[in-house]
Amino acid sequence: MIQVNEKRNLTMLMDYYELTMANGYYTLGLKDQRVCFDLFFRRVPENGGYVIAAGLETIISYVKDMHFTDGDIEYLRNKKIFDEGFLEYLRNFTFTGDIDAVPEGTPVYPNTPIVTVCAPMCEAQILETMLLLSINHQSLIATKANRIVRAAGDKVVMEFGARRAHGYDAAIYGARACAIGGAKMTATSLADELFDFPATGTMAHSWVQYFGSDYEAFAAYAKVYPTNSVFLLDTFDVLESGLPAAIRVAKEIIEPMGYRLKGVRLDSGDLAYLSKKVRKRLDAAGMEDCTIVVSNSIDEYVIESLKIQGARIDSYGVGERMITSKSEPVFGGVYKLVAVENMETGEFDPRIKISENVEKIINPGKKRVYRAYDENMLSRADIIALYDEDLLKENVVDVVDPAKAWKTYAVSTKNMHELLVPIFRNGELVYDVPSLPEVVAYAKEQLNHVMEEEKRFEYPHIHYVDLSVKLQELKLRMLKEHEKR
Amino acid sequence: MIQVNEKRNLTMLMDYYELTMANGYYTLGLKDQRVCFDLFFRRVPENGGYVIAAGLETIISYVKDMHFTDGDIEYLRNKKIFDEGFLEYLRNFTFTGDIDAVPEGTPVYPNTPIVTVCAPMCEAQILETMLLLSINHQSLIATKANRIVRAAGDKVVMEFGARRAHGYDAAIYGARACAIGGAKMTATSLADELFDFPATGTMAHSWVQYFGSDYEAFAAYAKVYPTNSVFLLDTFDVLESGLPAAIRVAKEIIEPMGYRLKGVRLDSGDLAYLSKKVRKRLDAAGMEDCTIVVSNSIDEYVIESLKIQGARIDSYGVGERMITSKSEPVFGGVYKLVAVENMETGEFDPRIKISENVEKIINPGKKRVYRAYDENMLSRADIIALYDEDLLKENVVDVVDPAKAWKTYAVSTKNMHELLVPIFRNGELVYDVPSLPEVVAYAKEQLNHVMEEEKRFEYPHIHYVDLSVKLQELKLRMLKEHEKR
Repeated sequence: MIQVNEKRNLTMLMDYYELTMANGYYTLGLKDQRVCFDLFFRRVPENGGYVIAAGLETIISYVKDMHFTDGDIEYLRNKKIFDEGFLEYLRNFTFTGDIDAVPEGTPVYPNTPIVTVCAPMCEAQILETMLLLSINHQSLIATKANRIVRAAGDKVVMEFGARRAHGYDAAIYGARACAIGGAKMTATSLADELFDFPATGTMAHSWVQYFGSDYEAFAAYAKVYPTNSVFLLDTFDVLESGLPAAIRVAKEIIEPMGYRLKGVRLDSGDLAYLSKKVRKRLDAAGMEDCTIVVSNSIDEYVIESLKIQGARIDSYGVGERMITSKSEPVFGGVYKLVAVENMETGEFDPRIKISENVEKIINPGKKRVYRAYDENMLSRADIIALYDEDLLKENVVDVVDPAKAWKTYAVSTKNMHELLVPIFRNGELVYDVPSLPEVVAYAKEQLNHVMEEEKRFEYPHIHYVDLSVKLQELKLRMLKEHEKR
Repeated sequence: MIQVNEKRNLTMLMDYYELTMANGYYTLGLKDQRVCFDLFFRRVPENGGYVIAAGLETIISYVKDMHFTDGDIEYLRNKKIFDEGFLEYLRNFTFTGDIDAVPEGTPVYPNTPIVTVCAPMCEAQILETMLLLSINHQSLIATKANRIVRAAGDKVVMEFGARRAHGYDAAIYGARACAIGGAKMTATSLADELFDFPATGTMAHSWVQYFGSDYEAFAAYAKVYPTNSVFLLDTFDVLESGLPAAIRVAKEIIEPMGYRLKGVRLDSGDLAYLSKKVRKRLDAAGMEDCTIVVSNSIDEYVIESLKIQGARIDSYGVGERMITSKSEPVFGGVYKLVAVENMETGEFDPRIKISENVEKIINPGKKRVYRAYDENMLSRADIIALYDEDLLKENVVDVVDPAKAWKTYAVSTKNMHELLVPIFRNGELVYDVPSLPEVVAYAKEQLNHVMEEEKRFEYPHIHYVDLSVKLQELKLRMLKEHEKR
C-alpha cells in the first residue's frame, strides 16, 4: 500500500529512457565522457514579461542525496535489460559533476540557460526529470504569484490554494514558490513550519454552520480569539445576516474587552458590490480599522477588475488560480545536450538540435550568461556567450539579437555581471543555500531592476536576450553544416 | 534546508484555519461532538459526462499515519494562541471516526458525496485539506486521462508527463491517476517501481545529439538494445535523415541479428503528415510491424484531429496536457459540514449552507448514495438519500430531480446498490485496499456501465443525480426556515 509519510526516496523519479540511455552509454564505454546540458525555457507563460526562477533548493537536496537502494537495483534487474556493471555503478552512484544556476527569485527570460550541468554523461542524463520537474513547477507558480501580487499593488496577497494543488508537494513547494513571487502569507501550516512562510487563517463555513447562526458562531469565535477574529460573512447572507452579526459581536463582545474586530471575509457573491456595502456599514459603525478580505477564484484579472470597480478590499486570499497557475498551468523548461568533451583535446565540442520546428533549434556549446544594466541599474539585456569568452575583460562587446541576426550591437560591460552561480563543483555543494525569507528579500530586490514596461500584462516589453558574436557564428556554421549533409 | 528525501510527515499539511477552529472547539468543550462532512464536487471538468474518482489510497495512508511530532507541537505553541490542553490532545491524536468513500476508479457525478466523514468535530475538521487535496488532484488527472484514452480508442496512451508535473507527488500520483484513467504505460520509473504501472522509454534527443548523426546514434542504440529499439527521428530532419537512418540500421544491424525494429518516434513537426509519410516508407521497406509513436503536446482534441486527418499512429506519448489537465487544471471538490450530533437524542441534526451563490447551496444531512442501473446494467441515475433511509427495502422509490423539483419519479430498486463503502470504522481501517492493477481493472469494468452518451466530449448526456423525497423536503424546509429569519 502507498505510504505517503514514509521516508521517501525520489532518486528513481526519472524517465525510464534516462536509464536505458545511461545503460547504453555505460555499455558502450562512454559513461565517463563529460557533457554539458542547458536547462532553459522558450516562452514566458501568459506572454508575460519575465519568469521568476524557482526550484533550485529542491534540486540541491535531490542531487546531494541521490542514492539507489537495493530495492531500486532489484527493480531494474528484473527488467532484464540492464548490464550488471551498470547496476553496480548505480548502486555506488554519487554525483561528481558541476552545476551552475541562477539563484531562486531571479527574473529570467526565454532561451537563457538557468541551470547548466557539466558532468559525466550518465550522471548528467539521469538528472533530467528532477531538474525539469523542480524548475518547471516552482518557476511556474512563482511567476504566476508575482503577476497576482503585481495586480494587487499595495494590498496583501495570501496563498490559500493547498486543497486545489496537484498533490502534496504542489501544496508545500507551491506555497513556497508563491512566497518567492511575493505572496505575504499562506493558509498552509506546513509551509510555515518548514519554511517560515507565515500561516494565517481563522474560520471556514463549517464553523458558522456548526453553530447554526452567524451571531452564535462569531460570538463563540470571539470568546476564544478576541484579538484575532476574522468573521466569514457569507454562510447564509452577507448583508442581512453575516455583517450585522459581525458588527454586533464586535460591539457586544470584542470592544468591551478592549480589542477590535480584525476583519471580515467574503467568499462568494459579487465581491465588488459587497465589499463596498460592507465597508460603508463597517465605517458607519466606527469600525474603520476592520479589514475586508476576499477569496473565491481570484487572480490578477479579477483583481484588476475589482480595482476598476472601486471595490474596498484590503487583502486577497488567492487559491486555485495561483497554486495551479490555472490560466497557463504548464511551464515548458527543457534540458538539452549542448556540448560533449573531446577526449583528445579536453575541449567541449558543441552539439546542436535542429528539429522540425524552427523554434526548437537550440543554442550550441558550453555557455556563460551575462546580464547588462543601464546607468539606473535597470536590467536591459541578457547575453549568452560561449564559456571560453570572458566578456567582462572588454569594455564594450558586440552582440547579436537573434531576431535581427543581420546586425550587431555594442553593449557596455560597465554594469554587467554573470547570471549563473556555481552550485556544485566536482559533486561538492559550493553554494550557500539561502533561507526562504532571504530568497523572498532577494526576489523583491531583483524586481527593482526590472523595467516597468516588462511588468505589464498586455504586450510587455520583450527583454533582449542576445548572443555573443562568437556564439551566433558557431550556431550558423553548425546549421549550415547539417544542411549540407 | 529543504530535504526532499527525508522521512516526511504530512500531518501538518492542513489549512491553518482548521487548527484555529479545532482549538476553538476544544476550548469550548465541543471537541468530541460528532459531526458529518460530505466531500463532493459541483461540476465535471471540461463539461464532461463524468469524473473518475481517485485519491482514496493516499487518504487512507494519511489518516492511518497522522501524528503530530514534538516539532509540530512546538511550532504551534510558538504561535501563542493554542490552548495547552489542545496541544496535548494533538500530541495524542489518532483518528477515531468513520469514513466512507466510493472506490477509486468509480465514475462519479456532481453533488454526489464521494467521501463522507463522521467523527468528533476536531478530527473531522483537520482532515479537510488532505482529503480535498488528494481527491481533487487525483480525480482531476484520472478524469483527464480517461478523456485522452477515449479519444485514442484502440491505440495505446503512454504517460510522459513527469517533467511538467506540479511537483514530485504530481508526477508520481499523477502517473498513478493516469493508469486509473486508462493509460497503459508511463515514462516515470518510480511509478512503475511503486505501483506496477509499467514503465517505457528508449531515447531522447540527447542520445542522437551525443553521437552527432542519426545513423551513428541509432546504430549504437541497436547494438545495446537490438530487440527493443524505438528511434527518435526528429533531432535533425525526419524524412531526410532520421527515417532513412532508422531503416538502414534496421536492415544493417537489427534484422541480420534476427530481430525487428520495434518502432520510431516523432516528437515535433506535422505529426499527421509525417506519420503518413513514415508509414509508407516503412511499409515499402518491409517494416509493416515497426510501430509509430508520437509525442509533443498531445491531448484528446489533437488525437481526434490526427484521426480525422488519417494519421498513421500506433501509440501516443502524452505529457504536459494530461499530467496537468492543462485545459482545465482545477478540480473543485469541496468538504462541507452537513450534520451535527444532537447530544440529547444521539441523532444527527442536519446543517445547511446557503451562500451568496445559489449553486453553492448544499444538500443537508448525513447521507447514503445509491446508483440505479437499467436492465442492461447501464448506470442511469444516482440517488442521494438520508442515512436513515434504506431505499433497498422498497421495490420502487420516489425521487426528485433537483432541476425539476416540481415532480417526483419512481425508480425501481431492482438494479440498485450503495455507492459509498466503509473505509474506516471507529478509526479502524476496514477496507481491503486494492493494488493499482486491481483498481485499473475495476475502473475499466465500471466504464462498461456508463452510457455511451456520457462518454462524448461535446454535450454529453447529463447523468441524473436525484434526491430522495425525504432529503428534498428537508432541504426546502431548512431553506425556508433561514429565509424567515
